Amino acid sequence: MLREQSLATGLSWKVRTSEPVAYDVIETVDLLEPGNPLLMTTSGGRGSARRFVAVDEALLDSLADPLEKYFAQYGATCQLLSVPAGEANKDLRAFQLVSDALDGFGIQRRNEPVLAVGGGVVTDLVGFAASCYRRGVPYVRVPTTVMGYVDAAIGIKTGINHNGAKNRIGSFAAPVATLLDRRFLRTLPLRHVRNGVGEMLKLAVIKDADLFAQLERDGPGAVEDRFQGSGADLLHGAIRGMLEELEPNLHEANLERAMDFGHTFSPALEMSHLGDLLHGEAVAIDVALSMMLSRVRGMVDEATCDRVLQMSGRLGLPVGHPGVRPSLLWEGLQERSAHRNGRQRVPLVEGLGRCAFVNDITLGQLRAACRALSDWAERDQARADRYGAGHQGNR
Amino acid sequence: MLREQSLATGLSWKVRTSEPVAYDVIETVDLLEPGNPLLMTTSGGRGSARRFVAVDEALLDSLADPLEKYFAQYGATCQLLSVPAGEANKDLRAFQLVSDALDGFGIQRRNEPVLAVGGGVVTDLVGFAASCYRRGVPYVRVPTTVMGYVDAAIGIKTGINHNGAKNRIGSFAAPVATLLDRRFLRTLPLRHVRNGVGEMLKLAVIKDADLFAQLERDGPGAVEDRFQGSGADLLHGAIRGMLEELEPNLHEANLERAMDFGHTFSPALEMSHLGDLLHGEAVAIDVALSMMLSRVRGMVDEATCDRVLQMSGRLGLPVGHPGVRPSLLWEGLQERSAHRNGRQRVPLVEGLGRCAFVNDITLGQLRAACRALSDWAERDQARADRYGAGHQGNR
Repeated sequence: MLREQSLATGLSWKVRTSEPVAYDVIETVDLLEPGNPLLMTTSGGRGSARRFVAVDEALLDSLADPLEKYFAQYGATCQLLSVPAGEANKDLRAFQLVSDALDGFGIQRRNEPVLAVGGGVVTDLVGFAASCYRRGVPYVRVPTTVMGYVDAAIGIKTGINHNGAKNRIGSFAAPVATLLDRRFLRTLPLRHVRNGVGEMLKLAVIKDADLFAQLERDGPGAVEDRFQGSGADLLHGAIRGMLEELEPNLHEANLERAMDFGHTFSPALEMSHLGDLLHGEAVAIDVALSMMLSRVRGMVDEATCDRVLQMSGRLGLPVGHPGVRPSLLWEGLQERSAHRNGRQRVPLVEGLGRCAFVNDITLGQLRAACRALSDWAERDQARADRYGAGHQGNR
Repeated sequence: MLREQSLATGLSWKVRTSEPVAYDVIETVDLLEPGNPLLMTTSGGRGSARRFVAVDEALLDSLADPLEKYFAQYGATCQLLSVPAGEANKDLRAFQLVSDALDGFGIQRRNEPVLAVGGGVVTDLVGFAASCYRRGVPYVRVPTTVMGYVDAAIGIKTGINHNGAKNRIGSFAAPVATLLDRRFLRTLPLRHVRNGVGEMLKLAVIKDADLFAQLERDGPGAVEDRFQGSGADLLHGAIRGMLEELEPNLHEANLERAMDFGHTFSPALEMSHLGDLLHGEAVAIDVALSMMLSRVRGMVDEATCDRVLQMSGRLGLPVGHPGVRPSLLWEGLQERSAHRNGRQRVPLVEGLGRCAFVNDITLGQLRAACRALSDWAERDQARADRYGAGHQGNR
C-alpha cells in the first residue's frame, strides 16, 4: 500500500508490497524420451513453437539430437547454445555470450523459458543471464551432475565469478522449475559424482545425523553406481534438507545459514586452485577443516571428527590439500565476513547434525586446525599402509 | 510453505513464498547541508564509518567537497567513484567499472548502502551493479535531474543498454530510499530540465487530465525557474501518479502498463540517435506520434491532439525528428511486442487522461500517423511565422 506523508521538507512516499516466489523441483525419468511431456510443458508448453536451450559444451554432441527430436514431436524447433563448462569460464565474458545469444534469438519476455542443461556452472551462469535479460526472462534448470541435482539447481541463486572471487556477481532468481533426471548421471565421471557428494556430506554433518548414517552405509556404493540404484533416498534426503533450510530464508535475510557449512574457507581455496579443485572437493576439505576447528574449540569430540573424515575418505573426497595454509584461510574468512555483513557467522558442529554459529575464530585456531588436519592425514596414511587395499586413501 | 509430493517418477517439491519489497521516496531540502541528517541515516547511519558514493562525472567537481564535508561531521569517510554520464556509456563496460570499484572498496553486504548521485543513467547503472554485487547490496538514489526526480529514481528498475537496445539487461531492485532535493536542479541546463518534463507530459496525457491542465498553466514557467518556485505541485503530481501506477505492478506482472505511453517507439528512436536525442525528448516525440496514431484510429479528436502537441512545444520539447520513419517505428514496435510477450499492448489515449491498450497497429497506421505529424509541424511552423516571437517553436 502506497502511503503519502507531508513533511516539513516536502512530501514522502512509502512503498510497501511483496513479490510472490514460486518454483517446482520435479524428479522424472527419461526426460528426453518422446513419451515424457514434462520438459515441453514446463518450458512454456504450446505457447511458443521454439526453444532456446543452453547446453554444457561437453554434452552438446550427445544431447543435440535427442533435444531436437524431443521438441520436434511437438512441432517445436530448438536453438542450441554451447556453454563452456568449468568454474574458470563462469565469468562476465560468458555472461555476455549468453546475453548476445538471447538477443540473436529475439526471446519473448514471458512465454519462452530459457532451458539450462548442464552442471552447476552452466545453470548458475545461464540463470544469471536469464535473470538480467529484459530484467528477467523465465528459465528452467536441468542439472546433469550430482552437484546440480542436490545443490546448485535446488535454490534460487545464480551467479558468475569476478576478479577471482566466487559468485561475486549474481542474483536471487527462482527458475520456473528444476527438472531432475538421474539418468543424466549414468555417464558422469566418478570424480564429478563425488563432487556433488561433497555437498551431501556437508548437509548431513551440519543438519541431519540420519542422513549421515545413511551416507556411511550406502554412500560409497551409490557413488560407484552413480546413484542409479539404491542412492535415490540419499538424493532425496539431501534435496529435502536443502529446501527445508532454504525456503524460509530464500533471499538470505538471515545471514546465519547452516548451509554455509563448508563454504567459509572453500571459496578462497577453490578460486586459488581452479582447474585443480572442484567445488565439492573444496567444500569437503572445508568440512574437514571445520571439523578440526570445532574440535580445537572444544565443540565436538575426537571420535566424531574422525568419523566424518573417515567417511569423507570412503566417499573418495579429499580431506586435505597443499593449498590449505592458515593465511589463505584467514583471508577467506575476512572475505566471507564481509559477505556476512561484518561478522564471521561461521557454522560449526556441536555434534553430528547440530549446528552452532561462531564469530570469534582466531588465526591461532586456524593454525591449530591446519596442524590437526595434517596430523590426522598422517595417521590416516599410516593406517592405510598398515591395512593396505581395504582402506580407501584420501587425496 | 514447502510441499513434498510423491509422483510415479520420483518426488517433487513446491516452493511457495514471497519476498517483501519496501522503499521510501523522500523529499528534503539541502541534502548536503551539515544540519540535515537524512543522507547519513538512510545510507546506513552509524553502522559504518565509510561510504561508497558513485557520482555523475559532470558533478564530481562540485559535489566532492560537500559530500566529504557532510560525512566527515559524522566521522565517516567517503570513497568517490566518477561515473560517466550519457546514455552511450550505460553499458556492460561501465557495469564492470562499478563492480570493480565495489570490489576495491570491499563493501559489506548489508550495512554500507551504495550511494548513486546523478541523473537517470547513473542511478540506473549503479543500481544495477549494486543489485548484482554479492547478489545485491543495498543502494540509495539521489537524483540530480528532473528525469531522475519524477521518473528514473521513482520505481525499482535498473539497467544498462546492450547491443544497441535500451535497458536490455537489468533488474528489478528496490533501493533503500530515493532522496529528492530540488536544489540540485538549480544548475541543470534547461534542455535537461525539459528532458524530465517529457516524462511528466507522458504521465499527464495518459493518466491525469488535471495534471495536464496544471502543466499547461504552470509548466513553461516552472521549466524556466527549474522547479525552484511554483513547480513543486507539478513534481508531486508526477511522482504520485507514477507511484500509483507502479506500486500494484512493481515487477510488471501485468504487461499492459499505462506508464509505457511514449515508450513504444522512443527506445528505437533514442538508441539510433544517441548523442542527439535525450530520453525525454524521444519520449515527447513518441507522445506526439501516439497522439496522431490515436487520432488516425479515431480514438481522440483533433482538438485534443492539437492541445497536447501545442503544450509539448510550449514546454520546449520536440514533437518531430528527421529520424521518425515508419520503418523504424515498425521495427521498434516489433521489439516492444517481444518485450510485452508477443502482443503490442500499446497504450494510446481515448481522451486526455484516459488510456486504452491496442494490439492491432498496422504499418499503414504508422505511415498515416507520420504524415499527420509532419503536416501538423508544417502548420505549426506557418503559425509561428505568422505570429512570430510569441509562439515558441518546436525542434
